Amino acid sequence: MSTESFDAYREDVAGRANVSDTAELVDFYRDLEDQHAGALWTVANKIEPWEPKSQSVPVVWHYDRLRDHVLRALDLVSPEKAGRRVVYLANPGRRDVSAAVGWLYTGLQVMGPGEVASAHRHSASALRFIMEGSGAFTNVDGHKMTLGRNDFVLTPNGTWHEHGVSEDGSVCIWQDGLDIPLMNALEANFYEVHPDLNQAVGYAVDDSTATWGNAALLPAGESWSKRYSPLLKYEWEPTYEALLRYARASDGSPFDGIHMNYVNPFNGGPPMSTIGASMQLLRPGEHTKAHREVGSFVYQCAKGSGHSIIGGKRFDWKERDIFVVPSWMWHEHVNGSASDDACLFSFHDLPAMRALNLYRSEAFADNGGHQPVLS
Amino acid sequence: MSTESFDAYREDVAGRANVSDTAELVDFYRDLEDQHAGALWTVANKIEPWEPKSQSVPVVWHYDRLRDHVLRALDLVSPEKAGRRVVYLANPGRRDVSAAVGWLYTGLQVMGPGEVASAHRHSASALRFIMEGSGAFTNVDGHKMTLGRNDFVLTPNGTWHEHGVSEDGSVCIWQDGLDIPLMNALEANFYEVHPDLNQAVGYAVDDSTATWGNAALLPAGESWSKRYSPLLKYEWEPTYEALLRYARASDGSPFDGIHMNYVNPFNGGPPMSTIGASMQLLRPGEHTKAHREVGSFVYQCAKGSGHSIIGGKRFDWKERDIFVVPSWMWHEHVNGSASDDACLFSFHDLPAMRALNLYRSEAFADNGGHQPVLS
Amino acid sequence: MSTESFDAYREDVAGRANVSDTAELVDFYRDLEDQHAGALWTVANKIEPWEPKSQSVPVVWHYDRLRDHVLRALDLVSPEKAGRRVVYLANPGRRDVSAAVGWLYTGLQVMGPGEVASAHRHSASALRFIMEGSGAFTNVDGHKMTLGRNDFVLTPNGTWHEHGVSEDGSVCIWQDGLDIPLMNALEANFYEVHPDLNQAVGYAVDDSTATWGNAALLPAGESWSKRYSPLLKYEWEPTYEALLRYARASDGSPFDGIHMNYVNPFNGGPPMSTIGASMQLLRPGEHTKAHREVGSFVYQCAKGSGHSIIGGKRFDWKERDIFVVPSWMWHEHVNGSASDDACLFSFHDLPAMRALNLYRSEAFADNGGHQPVLS
Amino acid sequence: MSTESFDAYREDVAGRANVSDTAELVDFYRDLEDQHAGALWTVANKIEPWEPKSQSVPVVWHYDRLRDHVLRALDLVSPEKAGRRVVYLANPGRRDVSAAVGWLYTGLQVMGPGEVASAHRHSASALRFIMEGSGAFTNVDGHKMTLGRNDFVLTPNGTWHEHGVSEDGSVCIWQDGLDIPLMNALEANFYEVHPDLNQAVGYAVDDSTATWGNAALLPAGESWSKRYSPLLKYEWEPTYEALLRYARASDGSPFDGIHMNYVNPFNGGPPMSTIGASMQLLRPGEHTKAHREVGSFVYQCAKGSGHSIIGGKRFDWKERDIFVVPSWMWHEHVNGSASDDACLFSFHDLPAMRALNLYRSEAFADNGGHQPVLS
Repeated sequence: MSTESFDAYREDVAGRANVSDTAELVDFYRDLEDQHAGALWTVANKIEPWEPKSQSVPVVWHYDRLRDHVLRALDLVSPEKAGRRVVYLANPGRRDVSAAVGWLYTGLQVMGPGEVASAHRHSASALRFIMEGSGAFTNVDGHKMTLGRNDFVLTPNGTWHEHGVSEDGSVCIWQDGLDIPLMNALEANFYEVHPDLNQAVGYAVDDSTATWGNAALLPAGESWSKRYSPLLKYEWEPTYEALLRYARASDGSPFDGIHMNYVNPFNGGPPMSTIGASMQLLRPGEHTKAHREVGSFVYQCAKGSGHSIIGGKRFDWKERDIFVVPSWMWHEHVNGSASDDACLFSFHDLPAMRALNLYRSEAFADNGGHQPVLS
Repeated sequence: MSTESFDAYREDVAGRANVSDTAELVDFYRDLEDQHAGALWTVANKIEPWEPKSQSVPVVWHYDRLRDHVLRALDLVSPEKAGRRVVYLANPGRRDVSAAVGWLYTGLQVMGPGEVASAHRHSASALRFIMEGSGAFTNVDGHKMTLGRNDFVLTPNGTWHEHGVSEDGSVCIWQDGLDIPLMNALEANFYEVHPDLNQAVGYAVDDSTATWGNAALLPAGESWSKRYSPLLKYEWEPTYEALLRYARASDGSPFDGIHMNYVNPFNGGPPMSTIGASMQLLRPGEHTKAHREVGSFVYQCAKGSGHSIIGGKRFDWKERDIFVVPSWMWHEHVNGSASDDACLFSFHDLPAMRALNLYRSEAFADNGGHQPVLS
Repeated sequence: MSTESFDAYREDVAGRANVSDTAELVDFYRDLEDQHAGALWTVANKIEPWEPKSQSVPVVWHYDRLRDHVLRALDLVSPEKAGRRVVYLANPGRRDVSAAVGWLYTGLQVMGPGEVASAHRHSASALRFIMEGSGAFTNVDGHKMTLGRNDFVLTPNGTWHEHGVSEDGSVCIWQDGLDIPLMNALEANFYEVHPDLNQAVGYAVDDSTATWGNAALLPAGESWSKRYSPLLKYEWEPTYEALLRYARASDGSPFDGIHMNYVNPFNGGPPMSTIGASMQLLRPGEHTKAHREVGSFVYQCAKGSGHSIIGGKRFDWKERDIFVVPSWMWHEHVNGSASDDACLFSFHDLPAMRALNLYRSEAFADNGGHQPVLS
Repeated sequence: MSTESFDAYREDVAGRANVSDTAELVDFYRDLEDQHAGALWTVANKIEPWEPKSQSVPVVWHYDRLRDHVLRALDLVSPEKAGRRVVYLANPGRRDVSAAVGWLYTGLQVMGPGEVASAHRHSASALRFIMEGSGAFTNVDGHKMTLGRNDFVLTPNGTWHEHGVSEDGSVCIWQDGLDIPLMNALEANFYEVHPDLNQAVGYAVDDSTATWGNAALLPAGESWSKRYSPLLKYEWEPTYEALLRYARASDGSPFDGIHMNYVNPFNGGPPMSTIGASMQLLRPGEHTKAHREVGSFVYQCAKGSGHSIIGGKRFDWKERDIFVVPSWMWHEHVNGSASDDACLFSFHDLPAMRALNLYRSEAFADNGGHQPVLS
């Protein structure tokens, strides 16, 4: 007879399950197992924790340690064979679902001049953040976009898309972000290869930015019924300028400095249904206060250097480094320079959390709002 | 006994009222009048026309004929006595309600250096379009804005607002647009003078533009629950640039050329509940096709020159001229220059029409889309 | 030379226009008139009143005085000739626009057994409230509905509709409510006669009530994109039961007793874009407190008797009497019976007021919330 | 050295990953592992399947086999010790997350006369469907509800709630439905015990149904800003009547017969943000066509008997049996009686799927729309 215990999750707190195993109960539990059933009180405290405890751990991936591996892939596989030539980042707590944090996937894609990957579409929402190289382009449903450093690009849920680098470009590396793991978890993931393998260009190059990327001006008579942004590329230069302007009018957030969200200009909502993205500027020497949020975050340092304290542990970062903050984990950010600003790009699942009415946040109350740092 | 006729609106069409007066009927009608009543069929064809027939007529107001009168007001009245020193434009068909077209009011306001008008608020939604001079400013609920040529500024329904010109400025003239007549017609007009007569400045100058006037980027953590745009000033330079960019990606509208709407960046909707505004660019030599719309429009030429054909009649305009298009009247626009673009600013009541589900439009079908012009 | 005065609206209040006529100013005013212009300060206080002053007056129409006139029309005109055989109610202050109050039209329509009016559609939103007779029906876009006493029926903006009485019915009288005057004021009124003069019945009779008229249950898989309710008939019996149930759970409104709105079950919004409707129950002996609202109201007593005090004047009513409350006028209601409840049906323009962000209300502060009654 | 293979998911299809292991590549993969990274092409085909393959299997739980076990729990544990005395149903493919299907939890709760469980609240959305017994009640945020057979009751996300049976009642059994597993997966689960362990009753008993449970009538002046329905109890009798009425006006759905959704009467949306519920009626002898949907479903037979074919396998059910349909699995339903109707209650995660823009469905194309049944 098994010596399995059913009362491992007992808590001696009024309103919580607190039933000790007896022979009679164990018999009962075994009978229930035969019926594809169980006694709630044996698992209640486990499945109803007092607050979320993420399966992910905070991690930083330093670009200077990853870059060579990424470039190595250039010689090892072709886009034809690999589909996409990507090194993905796997959270030690989430290797089973190939996630960097929570249900979010991220990876570094590399393409050389003249290469083009085949076009496909899927249920996952995807984005790109350009790290280095010239001549990269993406084509989304026939809208071709040219991509530069720190540009943020959407390839939304259900759109045909493909990437490449022009013949006269250089080796390009960018960060991919997707919610593939979430799509799998929700048993909602579909995938299709484009029947022609590659799409034609159907519009003026960069038309989506020209049409939809204008401050508080929308094209009259253009309608939009899709659940994602018609603006597909958010360029770095106006983004950085916007942060500087906003900084002149506001003190920003105590937790995130000068912090702006990329939005769908058609309705002010998030760029895609399940993934949002932000850029934040930490002023010279700024040390934000700690808070925690329901939601998972993938950051890339777009400018400058500094460190973040996540779950009481320090993670240093500089330009191009990537790090993650798991759900409901305390985090605060520090710009390490006394003279230069630092910028952090991030993407996250807050649109999903908000759509499901699950978002909440909490400020760290003690110690002037700063976590004690574990050494 | 009166010889009044009750059958003036008869139409000999199936489904329309077609009842001739008889002695018996006239007796009946008189009896109904005594009861504060009437027979529907005596007025049905009048109150249910086949299509709208505006009470307004198209008009152009040439700035070179108005400007001297506006400046004359500088010496004739003070802002203290006048409240606002404004010459308003009265449509010959709408003098009774002080409207320029439909239920829209417009006027030219003039202020000299160092003048400030008293602060007030009202149910009417209001806007400003800056025509000439330097140093003008507006304060809306404590948000002070500096105003330059062709800037478009909101003073929404219910906000405290006041205007002035700085001591080191010059005489300034701008166009006011309001829906005062609509508010009166709807018996919804409230007016209050600010208890202190003038507001304090509560924010960084031009903070609303710095915070909300960035393309597809919104301040994280800022919420907005008002029914109007948090962006209160739309500057000319980025507006003109947006038109040029959009023109590179699109052929625009056959009826309005390169045509963009000023929107509330928080939700992509109109800047105010009842008034919308647009800027359109007519390319060199462009002659748009005619259409008609349910809604009333007030235009100001912001750049260049040309003419519009409205209700079959030609109206010439150049920079600073103002003209109106009544509801459901055919109109088309012509840029008179073969080398320069022309820009038309307009405000209109389409947000009200759309909110009430009344908007519709129709293209002019004959003659290649162009109206025959009456001479 | 004219002796016209331009300073009639002066107010000696800071922030208001207070400019006396001078010869120089009058010259200026005349010059402006020549330019289709005027000086704002000569009309500002008139067009920007401190609060709304309705052009409508409160009126009650007693059914026992109207009914004979309505029946007289049966012999005087046919539906073919009249279009619709309706006696409309004209507010003494709104005869020019054929309105009962504000921009709302109402009338009493009468049809005999076997009569059918021709089908048409228009921009105005319309409703019916059934007063007497059996066998009445309405067909809206092919959905035929049978109508009984106190049923509330929609014929929304843009739908084809026609009314009739079955051969085995009796003479029927119902109240029509429309916003024809508003449509004309907004220069948005279109009218069409059905090409076949009458529609076919395309669905099971009363299908809209069977499909959409179920409490908190909607047909799965049915979508609805129109701007009006898919439920077209609201029957009296469940409405009255709902009031009785609600009365057991709530004290209701101090101003309106047990007060419920007819809504679009698809989204909980008003039944049509521009017109809303309500039914309220006054408990035996109930005397509500006074308040005023931006919006115009047409009431019909559906059950019982009592009186309302409107603008300080008493108006008695009993079943089938119709009365109106103008915008921003104090009103309170009294159930005259100590033993029976009284029910008031009403329709109003609050959906339009709310869509335009103009609604507001105010409680009467003095005298325990009750107006002094003028004798 | 490990003999682990990295090319297990290869597919020889253009656009898919198809890279065979080589010594050099395996070295590369090992190096990536050291960096908390991996090569996307080794897992791409696994994490991007062509279509969803649920980890859940279809199951039916027959009530006559479960009931005795449920009643046994009455003697084995008290609500005080157990928190809630519930036998939960565990899908063989989802035991690890205590789910009945997908991320949905369900269980059978039993309480005896005079018992009351302690009040708590949590991030999970919860519902009850009453199976047997008299005197059951639920208190949600002070709104006490009395519960009868086949009533559907909400205890939404974030509300304090507790259940009990009155002293004069009988042993009661109901089905609980929650999305606890989803809340855990999304790392968003919070739990609190009510500080007083039990709530006071703050309103008239059953006030939510009296106030909000009326067809197409909402209480005037009542507002609602929560993300769940103000109507907390949907009673069986009007639900069944609604199905019968709807059946007279419509043929219903080819896949689900006469099929209605329980909705939030305030806005027509789903009753809670993450869980929806429906009742469907299968007419005597009805055999619906097969389709599949993105989303997970838990059914309970509320009336009659029949069977469903799920994933090509037959599952028989009669009143009180519970069965599940996993995401994207073909399913069709059969009413086994030629004379009586059968009713299926269901709850599901479609509101979450729709909020995230993931819902889709597909009709079974072959064989007249019916699956071949595996024997």
